[in-house]
Amino acid sequence: MNTASTICAISTPPGTGGIAVIRVSGQNAFSCVNKFFVPRKKDTDIFQQSPYTLNLGSFMNARKETIDDVLIGIFRAPHSYTGEDVVEISCHGSVYIQQQILQTLIDAGCSLAKPGEFTQRAFLNKKMDLSQAEAVADLIAADSAASHRMALNQMRGGISEELKNLRTRLLDFVSLTELELDFSEEDVEFADRSQLMALANEIEELILKLSNSFKVGNALKNGIPVAIVGETNVGKSTLLNVLLNEDKAIVSDIHGTTRDAIEDSVNIDGITFRFIDTAGIRETKDEIETLGIARTYQKIEQASIILWLIDCTQLSERIETLTEKIAKKIQDKKFILIFNKIDKITDEEREVLNQFFEHYSGERIYLSAKKRINIHQLQKLLVKAAQLPEVQPGDVVVSNVRHYEALQNALKAIQRVKEGIQNEISGDFLSQDLRECMFFLGEITGEISNDEILGNIFSKFCIGK
Amino acid sequence: MNTASTICAISTPPGTGGIAVIRVSGQNAFSCVNKFFVPRKKDTDIFQQSPYTLNLGSFMNARKETIDDVLIGIFRAPHSYTGEDVVEISCHGSVYIQQQILQTLIDAGCSLAKPGEFTQRAFLNKKMDLSQAEAVADLIAADSAASHRMALNQMRGGISEELKNLRTRLLDFVSLTELELDFSEEDVEFADRSQLMALANEIEELILKLSNSFKVGNALKNGIPVAIVGETNVGKSTLLNVLLNEDKAIVSDIHGTTRDAIEDSVNIDGITFRFIDTAGIRETKDEIETLGIARTYQKIEQASIILWLIDCTQLSERIETLTEKIAKKIQDKKFILIFNKIDKITDEEREVLNQFFEHYSGERIYLSAKKRINIHQLQKLLVKAAQLPEVQPGDVVVSNVRHYEALQNALKAIQRVKEGIQNEISGDFLSQDLRECMFFLGEITGEISNDEILGNIFSKFCIGK
Repeated sequence: MNTASTICAISTPPGTGGIAVIRVSGQNAFSCVNKFFVPRKKDTDIFQQSPYTLNLGSFMNARKETIDDVLIGIFRAPHSYTGEDVVEISCHGSVYIQQQILQTLIDAGCSLAKPGEFTQRAFLNKKMDLSQAEAVADLIAADSAASHRMALNQMRGGISEELKNLRTRLLDFVSLTELELDFSEEDVEFADRSQLMALANEIEELILKLSNSFKVGNALKNGIPVAIVGETNVGKSTLLNVLLNEDKAIVSDIHGTTRDAIEDSVNIDGITFRFIDTAGIRETKDEIETLGIARTYQKIEQASIILWLIDCTQLSERIETLTEKIAKKIQDKKFILIFNKIDKITDEEREVLNQFFEHYSGERIYLSAKKRINIHQLQKLLVKAAQLPEVQPGDVVVSNVRHYEALQNALKAIQRVKEGIQNEISGDFLSQDLRECMFFLGEITGEISNDEILGNIFSKFCIGK
Repeated sequence: MNTASTICAISTPPGTGGIAVIRVSGQNAFSCVNKFFVPRKKDTDIFQQSPYTLNLGSFMNARKETIDDVLIGIFRAPHSYTGEDVVEISCHGSVYIQQQILQTLIDAGCSLAKPGEFTQRAFLNKKMDLSQAEAVADLIAADSAASHRMALNQMRGGISEELKNLRTRLLDFVSLTELELDFSEEDVEFADRSQLMALANEIEELILKLSNSFKVGNALKNGIPVAIVGETNVGKSTLLNVLLNEDKAIVSDIHGTTRDAIEDSVNIDGITFRFIDTAGIRETKDEIETLGIARTYQKIEQASIILWLIDCTQLSERIETLTEKIAKKIQDKKFILIFNKIDKITDEEREVLNQFFEHYSGERIYLSAKKRINIHQLQKLLVKAAQLPEVQPGDVVVSNVRHYEALQNALKAIQRVKEGIQNEISGDFLSQDLRECMFFLGEITGEISNDEILGNIFSKFCIGK
């Protein structure tokens, strides 16, 4: 990456608004903006003045015609977001004006910033570590109190600190074992093996704790996966649409954020539920162990909550058998039995239905997706089934797949260290596993990184951040 | 309107982005933000410090939990956009964060700003006159060089100055004629009638000049109206879609801007063309003066450019007659004859076509909308037909319907003055017409205004401006 260049981009959301902000960063940021900015107070060079000031004036194009009256915010390296000289140009939020100012800067030699390039420079200039940089994108994408809190905590160095702590301990460990190598002829052990074992246990526990928080972190960030399962024509799509329509939360367009794919998701009481698309189970004439079911089982694997949808009017022995089969497969997942089309049956039929599923003890609900009967009750059941621990300010929760994978690798390494100690292997082998554990932890904070990793991370940012 | 209240709104475009700006204005702006802002530099009260500074810190919610790390820009009354104390909170561009900060401010007693309320306060606090305030909305909506230039010029007081000039001259005029009233017994004329006539002529000319610029101004602002006229199935929709798809300009969503309705428009070489929807002329068995044609004539009335579309493969005497009938009705409008589906005929047939329309001397073009043949040539013809004078920086062009109507009323009044002088009516009647002329000119700059006019104007703004 060419950090010598000066970059610019529109940093505010795309489109028309009251005001928009164009950010310029790099060693030529001041001189480049200076060419086109005429301050209201004549004969003052705003870039000679104090940083952190707002300066009124006109932004001109190369033909000396005014593009707009703007406010210029000045940040001097290294005391800026990127660590470089930064100018923030606040103009009227017309798309035309934004484009004209941007074009003028580009014509004058600035490069259009790539997605996340400002934050990438902040990372490269050591204004933040990699997990903090990633948290910036998470923060922008966060759409619930919990995901916002996790991202903010990570941005402020929550995970970084825990990892720094781990790495310091590992480094002590490594130093001692590597010292043994220098004296390998003498067969000494500087690192007391029982103390090392205690430390390895402690580190394993910490990594496990972080790694285990991923299940919660991922659910909070990406939504709790819910599968609506049922035969064809029981009303799966109708139910999904009703749940989506009831979503009172402001749905943001998530262009350029960290999410990989847009899925149907709905926010209920501040919790995001993400619906996994499942095809309807097809008519199978009691041969229930068919391909359809097999595929549904796969979908069930990915979900935390299963909604098993039954058409009240299509009751049969087969349904009962299917229900049991599915309920058995579900194990540690939450299972909610939904009787749809409740408006189409009589009270007597409902009584029959109750007897039919009498022996089944889990959650059940009678509703009509089409007539919107009992939808609110279903929402309550979903929230209850979510059972997510509340994230407190300051809680360290891993919500990033990349971090989770690095933690898993670090865990394997530390577990090899433990085995090694038990098998009394020599210090040089121990040291190798210890360094590997450090390597993977270093990947999270970016002490270990390469262009590919960085490219992957920052390409998911929005432009202008 | 309650200008005593403190208002807040998201001023950047709606949605997710790198950063967003929330603006707070009013007498409690500082104290209200101060409740929730913790500066990075401890124990400093940023609101005691210099205005036009940017201050880093955390914005908390009422429960003292951090919502985001923000930058606070400070503007002290009367040196701000609204003329009041103003705070601009620059936060991460997450919808969740924007909503949380806004909600916190509202819970603390700020009101959510109505559309254009910041600019309305700027007007009420005499930071700008009404035509300048209106230009702010036009500037934000401007999507071409010409409309942008007009709005910028108006915002900087271009029209206001011309009108101030007119009103000063009128006031002299009025003073003299009203002085005559005090001496009405003596039948004196302080105001020399021939001088007055010269002045009235000059004023009439100025008003006419401004008023005549509206045709250009309106076309530049709202686009040049173009009607695509033709029989059914000649390819009107296909042609329209092709022209729209060729539009390389960034199409902004124009939510909350001054345009009244969203129409199909396309930007070619910086000129906006607005397409008027016309129904196809139906099969009429040579009885061409039918309702269909009558309706089409109405549409033609609204257009500046008429594209008369003919299907090459459906040539008939009827078409020739229709073409002549329409060409005759068009008078001062530009008329372009388009032969569509040119790919479907042979060179020989094309020769026949040429002979068929030989006597018709206007612009003509052979194309295929479907195969995109010669579309670029059509675009060139459109640009040529537009023939708009170029607006130079500094040109005063009226582009606002409200201003145009006021100018028309002022024109009528000044013309009554002229008649009055010719008919030697008394000073008190002259003075009445003179005052009326001043009244209408005053409406433009807002010296004369009422809540209804203001409500109308500012409701068309976007929120946050």
